[in-house]
Amino acid sequence: MTQTQTLSLSEAYHLALRALRSNGFSAEHADAVAQNVTAGERDGCASHGLYRVLGCVRTLLAGKVSASAVPVLSDSAPAILRVDANDGFSLLAYRSALPAFVDKVRANGIAALAINHCVHFSALWADIEPLTEQGLVALACTPSHAWVTPAGGTRPLFGTNPIAFGWPRPQRPPFIFDMATSAAARGEIELHRRAGTPLPEGWGIDERGQPSTDPDSVLQGAMLTFGGHKGSALAAMVELLAGPLIGDMTSKESLAYDRKTGSSPYGGELIIAMDPDRFMGADKEVHFARAEALFTDMSGQGARIPGERRFQMRQYSEQHGVTLPLALYEEIVALCR
Amino acid sequence: MTQTQTLSLSEAYHLALRALRSNGFSAEHADAVAQNVTAGERDGCASHGLYRVLGCVRTLLAGKVSASAVPVLSDSAPAILRVDANDGFSLLAYRSALPAFVDKVRANGIAALAINHCVHFSALWADIEPLTEQGLVALACTPSHAWVTPAGGTRPLFGTNPIAFGWPRPQRPPFIFDMATSAAARGEIELHRRAGTPLPEGWGIDERGQPSTDPDSVLQGAMLTFGGHKGSALAAMVELLAGPLIGDMTSKESLAYDRKTGSSPYGGELIIAMDPDRFMGADKEVHFARAEALFTDMSGQGARIPGERRFQMRQYSEQHGVTLPLALYEEIVALCR
Repeated sequence: MTQTQTLSLSEAYHLALRALRSNGFSAEHADAVAQNVTAGERDGCASHGLYRVLGCVRTLLAGKVSASAVPVLSDSAPAILRVDANDGFSLLAYRSALPAFVDKVRANGIAALAINHCVHFSALWADIEPLTEQGLVALACTPSHAWVTPAGGTRPLFGTNPIAFGWPRPQRPPFIFDMATSAAARGEIELHRRAGTPLPEGWGIDERGQPSTDPDSVLQGAMLTFGGHKGSALAAMVELLAGPLIGDMTSKESLAYDRKTGSSPYGGELIIAMDPDRFMGADKEVHFARAEALFTDMSGQGARIPGERRFQMRQYSEQHGVTLPLALYEEIVALCR
Repeated sequence: MTQTQTLSLSEAYHLALRALRSNGFSAEHADAVAQNVTAGERDGCASHGLYRVLGCVRTLLAGKVSASAVPVLSDSAPAILRVDANDGFSLLAYRSALPAFVDKVRANGIAALAINHCVHFSALWADIEPLTEQGLVALACTPSHAWVTPAGGTRPLFGTNPIAFGWPRPQRPPFIFDMATSAAARGEIELHRRAGTPLPEGWGIDERGQPSTDPDSVLQGAMLTFGGHKGSALAAMVELLAGPLIGDMTSKESLAYDRKTGSSPYGGELIIAMDPDRFMGADKEVHFARAEALFTDMSGQGARIPGERRFQMRQYSEQHGVTLPLALYEEIVALCR
C-alpha cells in the first residue's frame, strides 16, 4: 500500500508556494502557480496537481523559465489583446490580462487573447473557468512539444495540443471540457511504462512508424491523435491558431528550443471568448434555458456533462482536503529550503 | 455498369439553376444554390453535389424553405454580425453578409457571423473558402438534425454537427478541413443500407442502445460521434455555439420542426474569422512561412493536407467536367419544366 499525506487546500497551497518561493520564483509567479496546482489537485486532476511543482522547479533550474518575468499587455486590434509572458509561466500572464480581456469581450461581443512567450504546463480548463465565472463562453488551445504524429505520418510533429471549451450555467458549475487531441496524455504512457503494462491499441507507433503497444517504443516513436484523421486535423488547427497566427512557436519549434532538458513547452496560447449578452440580447434567459434542456437530455440518458466530475471532486476536497503519495509530499517538502 | 452523363461546369450550373428556378426559387437563391452544388460536384464531393438539387426542391415542396426570402443584416456588437435568412437557405444569407463580415474582421481582428433562421444543406468548407481567399483564418460550425447520441447515451440528441477550419496559404490552395463530429456521415449509412452491406463497428447503436452494424437498426437507433467522449464533447460544443449562443435551434429542435418531412435542418450557423494582419503585424510573412514549414513536415512523412484532394479534383473537373449517374441527371432534368 502506498503511504499518503492528506493536506487541507490551504496547506497544499502553502506547501506549493514555499517550494516555489524557496527556489526563486517571485511572489506573483509562485502564487499563480501554487493556486493552479492546488486547484488541479483539488479537482482530482493529479496530473495537473502538486506534482507539477517538481516540473516547475526543474524547468527553472534548466534555465527554461523566468522566475520573475513581468507580463506586458498590448492591444493589437480592438478585439485582440496580447500579453507577453516574457519567458515566465503562462499563468501570471493570463491573470494579468484577464480584466482587460473581459472588457474587450464585453465591448466587442467576441475577442481573442494571445499569450506569447510563455512556458506552459497548466491545464486549459483553469483558464476557461474564470471566463465562465464572468458569464462568458470561451475556447482555448495551445501547442506543446512535438510528440504526436499526424494521421498517415510516421514521425512526431504535433503536440498533445489540448482544446478546451466552456459554457456558463446559471446556478450550476459550468460545462467545461479540456481534451488533448492526442489519443492519450503523455503522462498516461509514462504510467504504463512505470507499471510495465502494455498500452491500448491506437495510442502510438514505434520509431519505424509501426503500431506499437510498448510504452518505451512509443515514447521513442510517436503518439497518435484521437479519432484518426479528424483528431489530426484538429491538432493541426491548434498548431496554426496558437502558433503562427499569434506569432509563436509550433510544437516542433518548442521541442527544439527545449534542447532535451525535459522542460515544459514554450510558446503561446490562444483564448477566444464570446459574450452571450451581446449575442442573445433580451432573450438571454430563454436561450440559456434551452442549453439547460440539452444538458438535461444528456444526463437523462446517462451521458456525462464534461467537467461534472471535477466539480464533484472539488466539493469533496474542500471538505476533506487532498491526499498525496507520501513520496511526492516529501519530495516537495525537500524543495522548501 | 452505371450509365453516366458528363457535363461541363457551366452546363452543370445551368442545369441546377433551371431545376431550381422551375420550381419557384428566386433568381438569387437559385444562383447561390446552383453555384454551391456545382462547386461540390466539381470538388469531388458528390454528397454535396448536384444530387442536393433534389433535396432542395423536396424541402421547398414540403413548405420547409422560403423560395424568395431576402436576408436581413444587423449588427449586434462591434465584432458580431447577424444575418437573418428569413427561412431561406443559408447560402444567400451568407453571400449577403460576406462583405460586411470581412470588414468587421479586418476592423476588429476577430469577428463572428451568426446566420439565423436558415435552412442548411451545404458543406461548411464552401463557407470557409471565401474567407481564406480574403487572407483570413476561419472556423465554422452548425447543428443539424438529432441523429447522434452523446457518448454514454442511448438516444439521438446531437446532429452530425460539422466543424470546418481554414488557413490561407500564399500561392497555394488553402488548408481547409470540414468534418462531421459523428463517426460517419448519415449519407454513408444510407449507402450501406442501399448496398445491403454491414456498417463498420463504432458507427451506431440500435433502438435499445446496443452497438449495431445493421444500417436499418442504426437509422432507427442513433449514430455515434467520432473519437468517443472527445468527439461527443465537440458535438455538444457545436450545439451550444451555433444553437443557443446565436439564439437558434439545437438539432433536437430542428428535427422536431421538420415533422418527418425529410427536409434539410433548420437553424443557425456560426462563423468566426480572424485577420492574420492584425495578429501578426509586420512579421506576417515570417509566420506564414512557419505554417508552410508545418505543412511540408506533414506531407514529407505521408500525411495528407486537409482539402488537398478537393483542389486536385477541382483542377480535373475544370478541364474535364463532372460526371453524374444518368439516373440522377435525368431526375434533375425532369425537375426543369
